[in-house]
Amino acid sequence: MIRTSLATGQRSLGDRATAYPLFPPLTRGCPATSTGELAYPLEVVYDYDRVDRRLFDQEPGPDLARWAPLLPPLAAPTLGEGGTPLVELEGVFVKDESRNPTWSHKDRLNRVAVSAAVAAGAPGVVVASSGNHGASAAAYAARAGLPAIVLTSADSPPAVQAFARAYGARVLSVPAERRWPLLREIVDRLGYHPVSNQTVTHTGHPFGPEGYKTIAYELFLQLGAVPAAVFAPTGYAELLFGIWKGFTELRLLGLTGSTPRMYACESAAGSPHAHALDTGAPAAIVEAGPSAAYGIAGGVGGHRGVLAVRESGGEAVRVSDQELRAAQDALAGHGLWQELSGAAGLAAYRRLGRAFDGPVVCVATSSGFKDVGVGTRTFPVTENPTLEDLR
Amino acid sequence: MIRTSLATGQRSLGDRATAYPLFPPLTRGCPATSTGELAYPLEVVYDYDRVDRRLFDQEPGPDLARWAPLLPPLAAPTLGEGGTPLVELEGVFVKDESRNPTWSHKDRLNRVAVSAAVAAGAPGVVVASSGNHGASAAAYAARAGLPAIVLTSADSPPAVQAFARAYGARVLSVPAERRWPLLREIVDRLGYHPVSNQTVTHTGHPFGPEGYKTIAYELFLQLGAVPAAVFAPTGYAELLFGIWKGFTELRLLGLTGSTPRMYACESAAGSPHAHALDTGAPAAIVEAGPSAAYGIAGGVGGHRGVLAVRESGGEAVRVSDQELRAAQDALAGHGLWQELSGAAGLAAYRRLGRAFDGPVVCVATSSGFKDVGVGTRTFPVTENPTLEDLR
Repeated sequence: MIRTSLATGQRSLGDRATAYPLFPPLTRGCPATSTGELAYPLEVVYDYDRVDRRLFDQEPGPDLARWAPLLPPLAAPTLGEGGTPLVELEGVFVKDESRNPTWSHKDRLNRVAVSAAVAAGAPGVVVASSGNHGASAAAYAARAGLPAIVLTSADSPPAVQAFARAYGARVLSVPAERRWPLLREIVDRLGYHPVSNQTVTHTGHPFGPEGYKTIAYELFLQLGAVPAAVFAPTGYAELLFGIWKGFTELRLLGLTGSTPRMYACESAAGSPHAHALDTGAPAAIVEAGPSAAYGIAGGVGGHRGVLAVRESGGEAVRVSDQELRAAQDALAGHGLWQELSGAAGLAAYRRLGRAFDGPVVCVATSSGFKDVGVGTRTFPVTENPTLEDLR
Repeated sequence: MIRTSLATGQRSLGDRATAYPLFPPLTRGCPATSTGELAYPLEVVYDYDRVDRRLFDQEPGPDLARWAPLLPPLAAPTLGEGGTPLVELEGVFVKDESRNPTWSHKDRLNRVAVSAAVAAGAPGVVVASSGNHGASAAAYAARAGLPAIVLTSADSPPAVQAFARAYGARVLSVPAERRWPLLREIVDRLGYHPVSNQTVTHTGHPFGPEGYKTIAYELFLQLGAVPAAVFAPTGYAELLFGIWKGFTELRLLGLTGSTPRMYACESAAGSPHAHALDTGAPAAIVEAGPSAAYGIAGGVGGHRGVLAVRESGGEAVRVSDQELRAAQDALAGHGLWQELSGAAGLAAYRRLGRAFDGPVVCVATSSGFKDVGVGTRTFPVTENPTLEDLR
């Protein structure tokens, strides 16, 4: 059984007939199909004919290397990402991604994206992120022995600022509008490998969603079936697209006969994918209002989310902060404390209120420790407590 | 193959010939051997002759129910605890327990202890804890649909206070000296099941360390061998004893021929187990000085840690906050951000500086998000950043 990568190249999501070699990763989108207003991402293609189906006889444990044939080369070492449990509650299955090495789904992406940096011989990794992505990239860079630069913004929660700084990266808090230009400069002049987006509509790292595919593989093994629907918190929709791609591969390999409907669970404060789908655009940029769900409340969307929703017969669902808080409380009430953004899957499922003919999966992306306001409140001490204080 | 619990009773660690039925769990230590100055814990005994060795043919994934024959009855539902990865660095294997449902090792204990509360028909669960233990108990009680009371102290970090409150428990911040009397009152008058200690030297819940045994089972399967040494952060030593017991069971079942040396990795601020071992006492209470490693810096020890170290040929190792910080930095430098207490395993291994003839495991117990001071610091914004700011 072949245990090494069967990746053969990149192809454009603007025109799937437009192909490129696997390296270098086209981190500024597809040069042939992108315009000044709209950038198209790329995806990795594989020699599927050579994939041994016994790959799916294994248990869905940690370390993405177990899926090596269906991933780009994993040149960076593992931190034990993936293999996260599925917890059933309220009639849905919650995929708890807070159980990753840096306690979010981003570790799946960064194992793959930092591997690209190592494989490309880059002298370092650079990422613009105000949250999980930056810390996760810093952790994987540290593990791989590569320097990392994290460009963050001052409005990320203080605990998350400490988190991003914990792994020894060079972290610079910069004004939001300066992040992307500086990132480009670091890429162009220092040769650092970018693991976050550089384009007008989101394209991100072409290898990134490949890491998220493994969620589909795990769900298939954990459920022993294809879910009827998957609800995923959606910022740039790399997660949503990755999971979708994984299920299409399982079908392509003849392992499954169906695919799930994919639901892009967006903060109502922005929801660029809902907007693009409403207007028939390949991707959209919208004005983003205020939201405490800072992980998914941006205004910049991308083509991946539109593809995943359209091809799967799903929808984009807008959820308010109030609905997010209710879902967050419901999850915590069953023992899972999620970041507000991380509860968007359950929030959107509840909002949609639709019955499905099969298992429903809500992806929960990240730990409650990362939320705005955590650690800013102090609580009074009861000096002479009695049982009465507990009524 | 028998897949249900083979637990048959409890026995005293003060005198292993003194036996009790499995229920009720003796949460105030062994009544026959304990004195006013020294309390002896109990442990669970099993019908080992009926254990099918094929139990150890499985993968070490999440949900302790996979080890049901060697655990007390698991009446409380899972949150997907256990199955944590092993990450190799600096020549040791780090068992990353921050990958549990509430991001610490305590989830293994609480799956088992909250199960005892459910099985005993208790109307609720009560716990005295300023950190991980309280939040984990609250999460498992929530999952089981039981009310929980958490007695915490004002000096736990604000983020950890939010953590303990996230799961819907009734949380009361009380002065440290009032915690244990109030806990006893809640147990006696409300009938709540206690999952933390009530005795003069530590005995804790008799079922608790059984949950930690599963770390030994996982290590055996992950390494394909018995480690030469295990370094575990040690507060009350339930973790240390539990891992030790798991390895003794593997030997008893004929699956292994050796057991590891067990190292109690204590904060030098307290180190009651080191003191007991130095003086030949079954357990000790010492004055505890200041330390930021609040998870392991108490003055109250118990007999379990003394047993595990003595019987295994290990040692208790005192580590300073400075040594803990160096180990914490080293772990983060490889991509693992641990709470200060959680780095005690690696800190003690480094301090001991001893070569072992076989794999060395350092247990890393908890996420860096739970540390004192996380989230209290703000970082300056660089208004007009250039590459010069990154030099």
